[in-house]
Amino acid sequence: MARFMDVHHGMEGITAEELKQAHRADLAIEGEEGVHFEAAWADPDSGIVYCLSEAPSAEAVQRIHERTGHKADEVHPVPLAV
Amino acid sequence: MARFMDVHHGMEGITAEELKQAHRADLAIEGEEGVHFEAAWADPDSGIVYCLSEAPSAEAVQRIHERTGHKADEVHPVPLAV
Repeated sequence: MARFMDVHHGMEGITAEELKQAHRADLAIEGEEGVHFEAAWADPDSGIVYCLSEAPSAEAVQRIHERTGHKADEVHPVPLAV
Repeated sequence: MARFMDVHHGMEGITAEELKQAHRADLAIEGEEGVHFEAAWADPDSGIVYCLSEAPSAEAVQRIHERTGHKADEVHPVPLAV
């Protein structure tokens, strides 16, 4: 397992409820790919959403996001953390 | 106080120790601007570093990063979180 940060652009105007619903949708199926989405942060003004996850691969992260209708624009492994 | 995610590019090859040192340098002076850096994640391959903080403003976050020698390329408020 490794840690990943993925980034979504174009989410201008996203609300707290929409972020929660998107996160819940990911959580509902994440186990099928061995992924766990730990947290997400959103900036409705710039339309950027960051998601932190643990997963076997970047592709696994992306497959969950694609199935829940919000493909990430970037998925980066972040092996270092403080 | 608000939450911010800032992003640094061009950090290819950053090591765990370098990330720790940069974070410690920020922590040492963050109080002077009312900032608290909560966590940071790095991808040495793509050279991207993400920092999560609580701060009175994006400018306060940037002033700390500038003083410790690693100005952020982007500082985004992230008022929404799950």
